[in-house]
Amino acid sequence: MQYQFELGMKVRDYECDLQGIVNNANYQHYIEHTRHEFLLSRGVSFAELHQRGIDAVVARLNMAFKTPLRSGDRFVSRLAMRKEGIKYIFQQDIFRLADQKPVIRATVEAVCLVQGRLGTCPELDALLLDAADASDNNGSVPAATPHPNA
Amino acid sequence: MQYQFELGMKVRDYECDLQGIVNNANYQHYIEHTRHEFLLSRGVSFAELHQRGIDAVVARLNMAFKTPLRSGDRFVSRLAMRKEGIKYIFQQDIFRLADQKPVIRATVEAVCLVQGRLGTCPELDALLLDAADASDNNGSVPAATPHPNA
Amino acid sequence: MQYQFELGMKVRDYECDLQGIVNNANYQHYIEHTRHEFLLSRGVSFAELHQRGIDAVVARLNMAFKTPLRSGDRFVSRLAMRKEGIKYIFQQDIFRLADQKPVIRATVEAVCLVQGRLGTCPELDALLLDAADASDNNGSVPAATPHPNA
Amino acid sequence: MQYQFELGMKVRDYECDLQGIVNNANYQHYIEHTRHEFLLSRGVSFAELHQRGIDAVVARLNMAFKTPLRSGDRFVSRLAMRKEGIKYIFQQDIFRLADQKPVIRATVEAVCLVQGRLGTCPELDALLLDAADASDNNGSVPAATPHPNA
Repeated sequence: MQYQFELGMKVRDYECDLQGIVNNANYQHYIEHTRHEFLLSRGVSFAELHQRGIDAVVARLNMAFKTPLRSGDRFVSRLAMRKEGIKYIFQQDIFRLADQKPVIRATVEAVCLVQGRLGTCPELDALLLDAADASDNNGSVPAATPHPNA
Repeated sequence: MQYQFELGMKVRDYECDLQGIVNNANYQHYIEHTRHEFLLSRGVSFAELHQRGIDAVVARLNMAFKTPLRSGDRFVSRLAMRKEGIKYIFQQDIFRLADQKPVIRATVEAVCLVQGRLGTCPELDALLLDAADASDNNGSVPAATPHPNA
Repeated sequence: MQYQFELGMKVRDYECDLQGIVNNANYQHYIEHTRHEFLLSRGVSFAELHQRGIDAVVARLNMAFKTPLRSGDRFVSRLAMRKEGIKYIFQQDIFRLADQKPVIRATVEAVCLVQGRLGTCPELDALLLDAADASDNNGSVPAATPHPNA
Repeated sequence: MQYQFELGMKVRDYECDLQGIVNNANYQHYIEHTRHEFLLSRGVSFAELHQRGIDAVVARLNMAFKTPLRSGDRFVSRLAMRKEGIKYIFQQDIFRLADQKPVIRATVEAVCLVQGRLGTCPELDALLLDAADASDNNGSVPAATPHPNA
């Protein structure tokens, strides 16, 4: 898999539920945050798009849960983006940092609403050119971020 | 204590953390939701106020944690409101339904921002008249809601 | 679709994000809570199962987002359950109460871990018999719950 | 104020609510995470303490909200700890990174439950010695962490 972006994070205890593992809904938070940081790393702010009436919204989510994260675990959230028709498709996989074990594998399909109607979003399309560049890039992650300790 | 409003709720498992009890931050969620339902029961929508540029914001919170709630617990969230200067002060207490044991006791001080500046909010002031009525009411809760099972 | 269980809920404002709609991750919370309430309605406690070393864990989630919920919206969360091999498969759909518009459609695949190993869970299997009964039942929902106002 | 620990974080969009600012309950998450990271930086794991039957629980919280954080804001969460009787008192203040404006000022009172009964926790007491050392230290923060970008 050719990823374009990755983000290091660490489990916060409040994200764990009574089973002692990260509650499933938090993986959706993790990958949403990863998408938004990916946009920001390319100069696109999700919040600013919203204020201009442009909303990227998720139309479909498919997520396989492989290994649960626990209190204190560090992990890397990786992302690749492509376009199919009007859909932006994000492959988003999370790996436990210690052993690179897959934690989740997710596919997210998003569409663009412009003033509430399905439309095109040049800001997101520009990221695709960037993706094409990345695929010439022999698998290196151009904007890999450091793995912060929190 | 003379309450003006109460709301029955039930712990949802995702609100419990690895200690097996409701994570403390969720009590802030519970009492925020109670305030907003109190407003709605008087015809005032927090979301609509925001769209009109009026934001009630919390300036100070004081919360004492008495008895932790656990998976499956039902509880009642009670509210009384008064005004001191420009501050709206909400006394918000939560009780476990089974035995009426106090769960938390909280005081919330809120102020009104109108187009981003400290101001007055007639919609909230109107609730105070209502509160004065309630205090003539011998302690009954005028708009008590049923305790739903979820 | 033949549902076995339904639960009425209402959006809480803290569940909405800066787009003014319910943040996607909260739909995972809603449907998790619905599964756990379904179990409870049949006398099975997710928290107690966990304490006995039995954990139902989600292996895969597929969710289509149809209509976003907003501040104040009431909704009904419906569930049907079946078994395929060792997997328990939950069809979980949420509808806006006002117009019965579909909000999300989700399929959740869960497996049972007994003392940490894949196993069978008689408590969950018992719910399937119940499901078979339901399917003789001409589509009525046997344990429909009231739609509380919060 | 003489702080012993600080943690850099960044607002995640899902933490913002329909007012476009970080929902108040998330500040409780931020400061809980800061306490747990403080413990970890001294070799004490909140999750492991729990598994050994030792639970640090919050008895009282007092929080003043000064400046709201918004999408994309970076912030520093600072902590000082002292003991009064059986209570561990954490002064926890958050500052916006860009201008060091105070975001919240909080005081958290915690007690130790050992097998469910009020008790002493040598692991936490050891952190106090550490605090005493810090106060000889002219205000520098001994274990300051870098400010990661997420």
